[in-house]
Amino acid sequence: MASRTVVPPQQSPTDESPGEPRVSDRRDFLRKSMALAGGGSLAATAGAAVAAPLAIPESNRGFGKTIDEKAYGMPSKFEKHVTRNRTDVFKNRQNFSDWSMTPLQHQPGIITPNGLVFERHHNGTPDIDPKTHRLAIHGMVRQPLTFSVEDLERYPSVSRFHFHECSGNGLTDWLKPASVTVQQTHGLLSGVLWTGVPVSILLEEAGLAAGAKWALFEGGDGSAHARSVPLDKLMDDCIIAYAMNGEALRPENGYPIRLVVPGWEGNISVKWLRRIKVGDKPWHLRSETARYTDPMPDGKWRQFSMVMEAKSVITSPSGGMRLGKPGFHEVSGLAWSGAGKVKAVDVSFDGGRNWKEAVLEEPVMDKCLTRFKAAWNWDGKPAVLMSRVTDSTGYVQPTVADLSKVRAIVGFVQHHNAIQPWAVNANGEVTNVIGQA
Amino acid sequence: MASRTVVPPQQSPTDESPGEPRVSDRRDFLRKSMALAGGGSLAATAGAAVAAPLAIPESNRGFGKTIDEKAYGMPSKFEKHVTRNRTDVFKNRQNFSDWSMTPLQHQPGIITPNGLVFERHHNGTPDIDPKTHRLAIHGMVRQPLTFSVEDLERYPSVSRFHFHECSGNGLTDWLKPASVTVQQTHGLLSGVLWTGVPVSILLEEAGLAAGAKWALFEGGDGSAHARSVPLDKLMDDCIIAYAMNGEALRPENGYPIRLVVPGWEGNISVKWLRRIKVGDKPWHLRSETARYTDPMPDGKWRQFSMVMEAKSVITSPSGGMRLGKPGFHEVSGLAWSGAGKVKAVDVSFDGGRNWKEAVLEEPVMDKCLTRFKAAWNWDGKPAVLMSRVTDSTGYVQPTVADLSKVRAIVGFVQHHNAIQPWAVNANGEVTNVIGQA
Repeated sequence: MASRTVVPPQQSPTDESPGEPRVSDRRDFLRKSMALAGGGSLAATAGAAVAAPLAIPESNRGFGKTIDEKAYGMPSKFEKHVTRNRTDVFKNRQNFSDWSMTPLQHQPGIITPNGLVFERHHNGTPDIDPKTHRLAIHGMVRQPLTFSVEDLERYPSVSRFHFHECSGNGLTDWLKPASVTVQQTHGLLSGVLWTGVPVSILLEEAGLAAGAKWALFEGGDGSAHARSVPLDKLMDDCIIAYAMNGEALRPENGYPIRLVVPGWEGNISVKWLRRIKVGDKPWHLRSETARYTDPMPDGKWRQFSMVMEAKSVITSPSGGMRLGKPGFHEVSGLAWSGAGKVKAVDVSFDGGRNWKEAVLEEPVMDKCLTRFKAAWNWDGKPAVLMSRVTDSTGYVQPTVADLSKVRAIVGFVQHHNAIQPWAVNANGEVTNVIGQA
Repeated sequence: MASRTVVPPQQSPTDESPGEPRVSDRRDFLRKSMALAGGGSLAATAGAAVAAPLAIPESNRGFGKTIDEKAYGMPSKFEKHVTRNRTDVFKNRQNFSDWSMTPLQHQPGIITPNGLVFERHHNGTPDIDPKTHRLAIHGMVRQPLTFSVEDLERYPSVSRFHFHECSGNGLTDWLKPASVTVQQTHGLLSGVLWTGVPVSILLEEAGLAAGAKWALFEGGDGSAHARSVPLDKLMDDCIIAYAMNGEALRPENGYPIRLVVPGWEGNISVKWLRRIKVGDKPWHLRSETARYTDPMPDGKWRQFSMVMEAKSVITSPSGGMRLGKPGFHEVSGLAWSGAGKVKAVDVSFDGGRNWKEAVLEEPVMDKCLTRFKAAWNWDGKPAVLMSRVTDSTGYVQPTVADLSKVRAIVGFVQHHNAIQPWAVNANGEVTNVIGQA
């Protein structure tokens, strides 16, 4: 487009300055406003009005605010409702073992801004000084090592987009609805560009002893949260991360360093990481026995079910929203799989009787949120919307009924990846109908 | 990995709780600490120490902080130095026509967090209520239309990763260094996932009149900043954006709506957008005559040079940093092109005599920041580091000398996409040597 036109005498920009259209335009507006009954097909339902002259807004008339260059930028004051809410289902949770959830109904795309990335903590968020923090690698290694954060930042780095999901995401809503919004049903989920050092490089430096098969990762928080991770996964794609979405980790997400285990349940990506102990078997820690296990139909409990299996959810429209007029609506949502890439997403507008393939928005990345979209022509009658993902392994997202056959759905069960139905009534009100549809 | 091991009796996690390694481990540490002289090749320079027992940090001993669910999340208090600084080159700028720059030296990956996305404003940042804001499309259209923000959010949406760069990026540093850091030389650059409505959909709704070729976009700020954009580009890939990086636009980046013109100079992506007027020729506005034009060798000025041509810069190491020991260093930077994708980046450690190809980190996307990396074995002697991008059209990033042949480098010249050299001295200090190397 770079043309090489020589500049003509400067025209006064005031000719086109803020303000009402000039007379000829205004007449044109009025004429067309009277002549035209409605808009085009999209305008009719998505909501464009035939133009009348625009008033000059106050913002065009005065000085704006200057930027405080020493302050970190913040959202508009008109967006104060967009925060990470706790779910309201548990009224008597302990404050120090808690979580807060990403407002997925307000998040377009596949990245969650850091101020809204969900978090789960077992004893609050520590306030760690990166200058004094150290990471140790010990146990079944040839050479135990310690690293400062600055050391780690000098190692070869990788940045990778991955979804991050708590295994407890959705645990309040299995057989009947307990939650209203998609933030409450699915908000223990975020999309993050992680940056850090491949674990494989650090373990190779330490040197794995013969027989080494697992490693324990322990956090520097008040709960000393710890998990056992198999070396195969660690050497494959795990990261000691020091940054998320282009800046240092946030305190509640593990500052200054954490483990990231792509595609696996969130709590295994140990935050505030301070040591890695290499061993030959898992440690069967509290988070591997009393927590983060799955009840089976035979009354036993499954351990180490760490992969987050393929899942999807429609984020718009979703619970608590209200549709406007019948006609065109874009149905949009997120799909992901801890086992690979999203291959396809089908959507249904009639409670699962008929399905049509949604469009996947590029880029579609491994173990990453993928945005899907489908056009829906709402006839104004009650409807039930669903999405169903198929991943690159061929795995198809199950229904609650499917999962009930292979799991015991008793109490607050982890690893809920079933199809989420949203009902739309004739008034356009959208409600959660999990277990009902 | 989902195994179905039946749980053994729970072991006490206190066995592995925070604390010093158990006695056997500690002995092992001490033995190895004495036996081993140094680390591996990376540990020697990147800086891992042979492990001594770790002290239990305070953070492991007490309660952490709880999350305020009504507050938007913020960076750690230890990261307060990471903000958008103004450049110090202009001491007497007017406060209401100003800019602030992204701290690229602190940004890994290809996404800039919204609190650090650069901004340029011509009369401050307005504080616009999205409930009352309107966008009008008028001029050479069959049906003038107005849209509320809510209307626009109901239209079919797209989310796309693009770089965003001010045409003035680097204008202080052509023939000799004026700036110290990469934030000052290149920080009018950010990576953003934009979400909004394709302009093509809205213009098709309004209906283009015969002969329509350009459109004027005007902002609702105190400067009523406006630009002319050719319809070819608008219908190709432009977006009326309402979100960035997964949330509403930030006030200083155009809240509640703005134009996004992928790959073109930033100021054409008009912020706080309130009207689009379709016409048959450009308007030759102030920002197309007095500003944002390029001096040519023949004394004339070039207008409408809107494509940001291919460019790259090494962000680490960069000006103001200091290398530690000789040995391994990861050289990392950003490359981008307004004409397409990054095809390759070459790096030089000897001021451009020898070049080697850097590794590009996936995903490599159209008109998007691409992260490149190269391993460098520093011998401890003075060196000059450079990067040079080639884009998918075959265009190769020029030197300042190359550009001086086709442009007049007088004063503060726009569209500086020349190679940036950083000198490293024997103490490891990194300095800007633009025009000197």
